[in-house]
Amino acid sequence: MTRFITDAEVAARLDAGTAVSTIREALLAAYEGRLVAPPRVSAPLAEGRLVLTAGQLTGEWYGFRSYDTFGHPEAEQVVALHDAGTGRVRAIAVGQEIGSRRTGALGGVAVDALARPEASTVGVIGAGGQAWTQVWAVAAVRRLSEVTVYSRTPAGREKFAARVRAELGIAARAVPSPAEAVRERDVVLLATTSPTPVISAADLRPGTHLNTVGHKQIGRAEFGTDLLDRADLLVTDSMAQAGAYEPPMLAAAAPYAGRLRSLGAVLAGAVPGRSTADQVTMFCSVGLAGGEVFLLDRLTREIPELTGSGAPPREVDQVAWSE
Amino acid sequence: MTRFITDAEVAARLDAGTAVSTIREALLAAYEGRLVAPPRVSAPLAEGRLVLTAGQLTGEWYGFRSYDTFGHPEAEQVVALHDAGTGRVRAIAVGQEIGSRRTGALGGVAVDALARPEASTVGVIGAGGQAWTQVWAVAAVRRLSEVTVYSRTPAGREKFAARVRAELGIAARAVPSPAEAVRERDVVLLATTSPTPVISAADLRPGTHLNTVGHKQIGRAEFGTDLLDRADLLVTDSMAQAGAYEPPMLAAAAPYAGRLRSLGAVLAGAVPGRSTADQVTMFCSVGLAGGEVFLLDRLTREIPELTGSGAPPREVDQVAWSE
Repeated sequence: MTRFITDAEVAARLDAGTAVSTIREALLAAYEGRLVAPPRVSAPLAEGRLVLTAGQLTGEWYGFRSYDTFGHPEAEQVVALHDAGTGRVRAIAVGQEIGSRRTGALGGVAVDALARPEASTVGVIGAGGQAWTQVWAVAAVRRLSEVTVYSRTPAGREKFAARVRAELGIAARAVPSPAEAVRERDVVLLATTSPTPVISAADLRPGTHLNTVGHKQIGRAEFGTDLLDRADLLVTDSMAQAGAYEPPMLAAAAPYAGRLRSLGAVLAGAVPGRSTADQVTMFCSVGLAGGEVFLLDRLTREIPELTGSGAPPREVDQVAWSE
Repeated sequence: MTRFITDAEVAARLDAGTAVSTIREALLAAYEGRLVAPPRVSAPLAEGRLVLTAGQLTGEWYGFRSYDTFGHPEAEQVVALHDAGTGRVRAIAVGQEIGSRRTGALGGVAVDALARPEASTVGVIGAGGQAWTQVWAVAAVRRLSEVTVYSRTPAGREKFAARVRAELGIAARAVPSPAEAVRERDVVLLATTSPTPVISAADLRPGTHLNTVGHKQIGRAEFGTDLLDRADLLVTDSMAQAGAYEPPMLAAAAPYAGRLRSLGAVLAGAVPGRSTADQVTMFCSVGLAGGEVFLLDRLTREIPELTGSGAPPREVDQVAWSE
């Protein structure tokens, strides 16, 4: 009775508001200990690693996402949702959409929790899929007036700006330098594959909130320690995963580790968030394990065609092989 | 374009001969270095572990099987097959059949390689799914005259014997003790969940070949060291996996480790197999990683309805959600 869910289904049915609210639940569940989300594990293969991130929502479900490091641009991930009571697989998703929307939604939750309430301008570095889902999710938590974007190729950033205008209905401009993209912005999103800093702290104005989605380890990071020094508040989505990087994650190593806080703890009110309008806040996204399974669970439970109410259920093991 | 394959499909389409020949290919590929099959990795959850075994056939595919240690009798496993060129998922199987047939087929390959050519009597300890697939696969490599079976409950062993008669067409008897089941048998199959020895070396006659599928670690094993001492040849399906158990696998620890050989090396002719009719040979099955993906690849490539020749292809992402 496994439900098989494709990227097209996810894209059509998982809107940003639902993704952000679901991932917010996941972060709270992890903070409260109901979501068990250990650091990722991986198996070495010939041309890369196969990686497993697993999660369990106690009494409800367990599951995983798998992905690899082979570098194929069209590589598909697998997300599996098991029923906790029987071990049966309730749903399988194959593709890229759940993973990328999960990451975007984490950024959206962070912006919602930490950016100034009136934040309306966004500067993005990067024009790939991760940059897109960051903007997609942020647009669900703040009323945005303009997005500026920089990426290495003019064509890539122009296309990204056009997509923001077309799909999100928000004014958007491609700009020719990273500093121009982030200057005077309320929210800054770093979503690059760069191993070296793409902006500096001097580019940011007081009151900015920043998400970093790309490399963030010692010796390989899309930002420098000047940003960590500048930030009044450092937050991550999983303290366990932040502490498991090798080489270590910059914000999880001395002298920053003592200042790093859990986003779930902020959401729960156990740790203070932003306290003044001119603080700089920074979210170091590590990709809370189990978040993808939360999204798959939400998709299967709350969409009528997927739960059997409304349209008759279409179960793969009944229809896929019929003639 | 992912193919979704259910247990019913696997049961209907993967016969024992095909499974054994495919797993034989996997063992040879692993021996030759074309199949990369690292030890399993696992992520700790609240009530057990989620386990990933991964494999890559160089230039062809990579993939994995996932399973868990929660202990649900109906728990389903996931097997995924990625195309090596694109990273896309060619097929997903959900259920128990591929995993159990993989283990059975490994036993079948071992019997084919190591049992006497005229072996015709089989003694089985255990009456569960693993015991069944062992007999299922052995029946594909030897002309069997009788199967004797012992398990703890009379009902369980009687049902097993009846299934052998009905599905395999082989004479079968349930017997009231383990020793009776294995005495004077050409092939002995241990497939129990017992943490302590279920037979002793004195129960075996010269010339026996033995497969052990259940626990085989120091302090928790369905057989004692007397069997290892008695065996003239000790073989396993993965030296890497055999060496990765904690606590160590009995046959991979002193004083036996130096005698343990790779089944793939025997198949390739690089290591001698049985050399006389009265030797006792013993196969310690660890479950070669990647074997399940080999089987899934075979299913998708060689069965007409799954490859698109013959009947029109039924692709899940085209039909599962149409109304």
